[in-house]
Amino acid sequence: MPAPLRFGLIGTGRIGRLHAGSIAANPDSVLARIADPLVDGAREVAGTYGGIATDSAEELLAAGDLDAVLIASPTATHVDLIERAVDAGVAVLCEKPIDLDIARVDALRPKVAAAGVPVALGFNRRFDPAFREVRARVRAGEIGALEQLTIISRDPAPAPAAYVAVSGGIFRDMTIHDFDMARFFLPDVVEVQATGSALFDEGARAAGDYDTAVITLRAASGAIVTIINSRHSASGYDQRIEAFGPGGTLQVANAPTSLVSVSTSAAVEAKPPYQDFFLERYARAYADELADFVGLVRGEPSAAATYEDGRAALILADAAQRSAAERMIVPVSLG
Amino acid sequence: MPAPLRFGLIGTGRIGRLHAGSIAANPDSVLARIADPLVDGAREVAGTYGGIATDSAEELLAAGDLDAVLIASPTATHVDLIERAVDAGVAVLCEKPIDLDIARVDALRPKVAAAGVPVALGFNRRFDPAFREVRARVRAGEIGALEQLTIISRDPAPAPAAYVAVSGGIFRDMTIHDFDMARFFLPDVVEVQATGSALFDEGARAAGDYDTAVITLRAASGAIVTIINSRHSASGYDQRIEAFGPGGTLQVANAPTSLVSVSTSAAVEAKPPYQDFFLERYARAYADELADFVGLVRGEPSAAATYEDGRAALILADAAQRSAAERMIVPVSLG
Amino acid sequence: MPAPLRFGLIGTGRIGRLHAGSIAANPDSVLARIADPLVDGAREVAGTYGGIATDSAEELLAAGDLDAVLIASPTATHVDLIERAVDAGVAVLCEKPIDLDIARVDALRPKVAAAGVPVALGFNRRFDPAFREVRARVRAGEIGALEQLTIISRDPAPAPAAYVAVSGGIFRDMTIHDFDMARFFLPDVVEVQATGSALFDEGARAAGDYDTAVITLRAASGAIVTIINSRHSASGYDQRIEAFGPGGTLQVANAPTSLVSVSTSAAVEAKPPYQDFFLERYARAYADELADFVGLVRGEPSAAATYEDGRAALILADAAQRSAAERMIVPVSLG
Amino acid sequence: MPAPLRFGLIGTGRIGRLHAGSIAANPDSVLARIADPLVDGAREVAGTYGGIATDSAEELLAAGDLDAVLIASPTATHVDLIERAVDAGVAVLCEKPIDLDIARVDALRPKVAAAGVPVALGFNRRFDPAFREVRARVRAGEIGALEQLTIISRDPAPAPAAYVAVSGGIFRDMTIHDFDMARFFLPDVVEVQATGSALFDEGARAAGDYDTAVITLRAASGAIVTIINSRHSASGYDQRIEAFGPGGTLQVANAPTSLVSVSTSAAVEAKPPYQDFFLERYARAYADELADFVGLVRGEPSAAATYEDGRAALILADAAQRSAAERMIVPVSLG
Repeated sequence: MPAPLRFGLIGTGRIGRLHAGSIAANPDSVLARIADPLVDGAREVAGTYGGIATDSAEELLAAGDLDAVLIASPTATHVDLIERAVDAGVAVLCEKPIDLDIARVDALRPKVAAAGVPVALGFNRRFDPAFREVRARVRAGEIGALEQLTIISRDPAPAPAAYVAVSGGIFRDMTIHDFDMARFFLPDVVEVQATGSALFDEGARAAGDYDTAVITLRAASGAIVTIINSRHSASGYDQRIEAFGPGGTLQVANAPTSLVSVSTSAAVEAKPPYQDFFLERYARAYADELADFVGLVRGEPSAAATYEDGRAALILADAAQRSAAERMIVPVSLG
Repeated sequence: MPAPLRFGLIGTGRIGRLHAGSIAANPDSVLARIADPLVDGAREVAGTYGGIATDSAEELLAAGDLDAVLIASPTATHVDLIERAVDAGVAVLCEKPIDLDIARVDALRPKVAAAGVPVALGFNRRFDPAFREVRARVRAGEIGALEQLTIISRDPAPAPAAYVAVSGGIFRDMTIHDFDMARFFLPDVVEVQATGSALFDEGARAAGDYDTAVITLRAASGAIVTIINSRHSASGYDQRIEAFGPGGTLQVANAPTSLVSVSTSAAVEAKPPYQDFFLERYARAYADELADFVGLVRGEPSAAATYEDGRAALILADAAQRSAAERMIVPVSLG
Repeated sequence: MPAPLRFGLIGTGRIGRLHAGSIAANPDSVLARIADPLVDGAREVAGTYGGIATDSAEELLAAGDLDAVLIASPTATHVDLIERAVDAGVAVLCEKPIDLDIARVDALRPKVAAAGVPVALGFNRRFDPAFREVRARVRAGEIGALEQLTIISRDPAPAPAAYVAVSGGIFRDMTIHDFDMARFFLPDVVEVQATGSALFDEGARAAGDYDTAVITLRAASGAIVTIINSRHSASGYDQRIEAFGPGGTLQVANAPTSLVSVSTSAAVEAKPPYQDFFLERYARAYADELADFVGLVRGEPSAAATYEDGRAALILADAAQRSAAERMIVPVSLG
Repeated sequence: MPAPLRFGLIGTGRIGRLHAGSIAANPDSVLARIADPLVDGAREVAGTYGGIATDSAEELLAAGDLDAVLIASPTATHVDLIERAVDAGVAVLCEKPIDLDIARVDALRPKVAAAGVPVALGFNRRFDPAFREVRARVRAGEIGALEQLTIISRDPAPAPAAYVAVSGGIFRDMTIHDFDMARFFLPDVVEVQATGSALFDEGARAAGDYDTAVITLRAASGAIVTIINSRHSASGYDQRIEAFGPGGTLQVANAPTSLVSVSTSAAVEAKPPYQDFFLERYARAYADELADFVGLVRGEPSAAATYEDGRAALILADAAQRSAAERMIVPVSLG
């Protein structure tokens, strides 16, 4: 059995802490170093899961004793940190998105392509057991060649206005997951149409952003992807996928929170609302993402999003933004 | 194309009127005569569906121009009317039960066995498309040899106290349908266990009857049938069947009243309550029962309950009554 | 009770015969005259449902004894026949679409607006009990202001190539129902985006048409409608609607063909495929459409599509065609 | 925060190892000692989860440094070990059943009643989140007074013949869980009816046991419980409960293994089979059971089955055995 992979973690916010737990729980990885400019956060994580805390990501990467780094710091820092990690010969699992500016993403692209270490992007939904199962069954030919893919993706409630203002907008922040999911099934997207509205979220309206959007993607094969987004959902986190082909339809239902239903004189077969939180809904996906990444570093096959996938998702987000803003259909080239 | 079957109808209560409609709607039958001592009812039915009204069942049967008679008069009159119809050479479709007294049923048995015309009993649920489908799939071997059959059968609301008092009790009035359904799948029942309670219906309690009951039947093969009854059901008419064998389970769900479901912050996937009324739930079964009977009279294969089936259902009802009252397991012989 | 409405029927193809049956079955209407240039068809319908057969629609309308005419002849004849009927003072229920050419529709528009008789269009899905229920519940405020409407509408199998060639294309022939359904919920559509592909139907490809399409409509309120179409569906006629608002989601499921499900070692809770045919799926809708029209002629409130609704659906179809062909987002004005 | 509870584990078979994992995973407990006459098993568990291994349960209990003991050794040893633990002042969580002989259970009863430490029985299903939720909602009055409880409980496949021979039969081995579940809702059972058959399992037939059974329990209130058992289930572990009252029905569905369903020309909405294994299905229940027991030892309220509950379950199993064997309805007194 090989030694566990030594991980550095950069960023100890909500998502960084989640990954810290995954690293600690996986028998093939160990949390060796934690960095956060708010060093108390790093210390807290170290206290719970082990590892050495620091306030400096540079120091963490310079330590020379890491196999991999998990980047969970703010988006604006991702490109620099990926570059440093690659320079240090440390494998990278970076939270999405790479950056909000495609120029910066493109600038780093050659170095990542030439890097001797894997660079993966944290599009965790690829590891959701249900989505993965549908993709595997589509690939196995169960419903024939994919003709239509429908992704319904609605958050339980809008993000805080402060977050919306810096998130890059609904397409770069929220839909970006759905763009990657679309490409998980149909990588060669050639065209983007989008429409967005600000119907209920004052924060979105103030930022010139949308809280409601529908995006249509066209694949090179002629297959069509529909993405339906909303920033709220009264019944809980609404995450469904439907793959349609000549042989039939594969559907992913929402995750129930209970096996119990009730039938009364008012309604029958009523179940409790869905989970309200992405960390719950995708708990298993995050753990499996980490495990896949450990395998990737060890040279095993991986389903993780690559740097190229991360770039493609951003290109689609930019195209959707332009389509919605300028009322035009936008051709894209992801090659 | 043969001439339509000429029907006489005896009894113009709720169920008689239903059958009048089925006879009129079926292209292979015609309503020729209607009898009811309350002759206004007979006249009303004749006005709607055609035919000659009379206050006398005897007169109807003596007319000599009928192919078949549909007996929908009170239970106490069934045995006499079946006998007269057989004597007159008129085929019989008689509403269940034959009688509440097994001695009277047995007394008529030889004459029915020797009759030159078919005598069928109105166990309409045999013609419900879903129950019929399950039986056909069981018979086709889809789940292997039947091991367990579970029948959940709950009425929306108790019958009026006046009806309960003369109905012969829950087993002879309500469960009798389930006994026939059990035998539709497993004819050779050899043992009956039952438990009953009066939990909510004052009428049942006053009559020494039950409003809640569970009955277990054992077939000669060792297969076991469970019948779960209640005289009320808040969510509507509850009519489910589950057939279990080595290859799996076939289930009949309750009939929805709408294709619409709603998901809110209170509950998800909630549907409107089930139908509240047996005439709605079994509308198709009544029509198909009539069509099957027309075929039977013409010499075609039939799935209808025979006089023997009607007798067997009553024997099981009597055994359940005894089991519940005397707290014993009751062996039965239906041969 | 008023005298039954006297109907003339023009056209005795599949849909004409369906309406003949509805007219005959409705106690408030009677089939008085039937016209078809293939006069044998007219005679056959008259033989089944009554009425006087002719080979001339002009003769039928000139007879002077009709209250209403049901136009089920080929699309190209609709505008002329509506005009003649209006001139004759006969109420019109015309099958969709009015015409494939918006110029002809616009030309007749003033006369229809000024007509003393109602002119309704046969968008039968408005009368589907489930769609109607969802609309009523949305209007009653159950889920708040409508934000997103998703319509999945897939035919069981492609139409014959000969039909596709003259149908005007998928948007004018098939999606036109969905455009009307969209406007049944959100009348004020202001923008259309569409993408289409020919993935499996040679007839569509040969005609330069699509067999697969996704259309996005934007309402004046900012609400967004998504329509997902395919000309085939392995599991049967796929007809679903989902209305989403701040209070939750109302969904219309596909119509099951059976209440039976099966659980085996291969799969659990599996049900038989959906109905394969629009006449079955919308049987009730056609009957209710006729009843509504009878009420309309008598001055009662109606949910039927008007001439204006028929025109709007065609404008949306034209816009979708242009969007898909010219790769642009198309603003529309339905006023 | 109090110090973690120090646990001894007796028995390192499948279920013992499961509990070892739960003890180690719970932050409030620690695995201090492990005993198994097959000392290699004890050593293996100690190697994985920590603790001191021994081949002697006596030695383990005599060590004097334990707060609690988890007894997962063969049934025949339970009574002696409970007694020793109580004598040693160590709290007990003992796997079900207490014993197969009610006389031995009764003999220990006074000592347990007088013990200064809690003695709990491992009826883990009480801690299944769905069953627990239904009970809580019933107790909260959501469906009114419980009238009927239906428990469907089918194992995926028969136990090995060697196990069946010493298990005490289906009622004492398998149904005993359902008896406890019945009493979790309705403690005061007064009467037992049962029927069993050996339809497919040669081991059961050879042992004079059943592989198929239906049991009806009557509560003092008149409420009726139905338990439907089979030793096999093609579609996976079949574990459903339905609670029925005047206000409606609360149902627990089977646990899906995936959120994915497929619709094809053969079947629609078909899902993958259920889990095949009780350790998977009840994983959460086992963990919650351990947590509840830790709370019980610390004086917090507990939902765990007591020694009295374990005794009651055995009395019901004995009564069912007698009912099935002697074809009689058996009154019981659990006081």
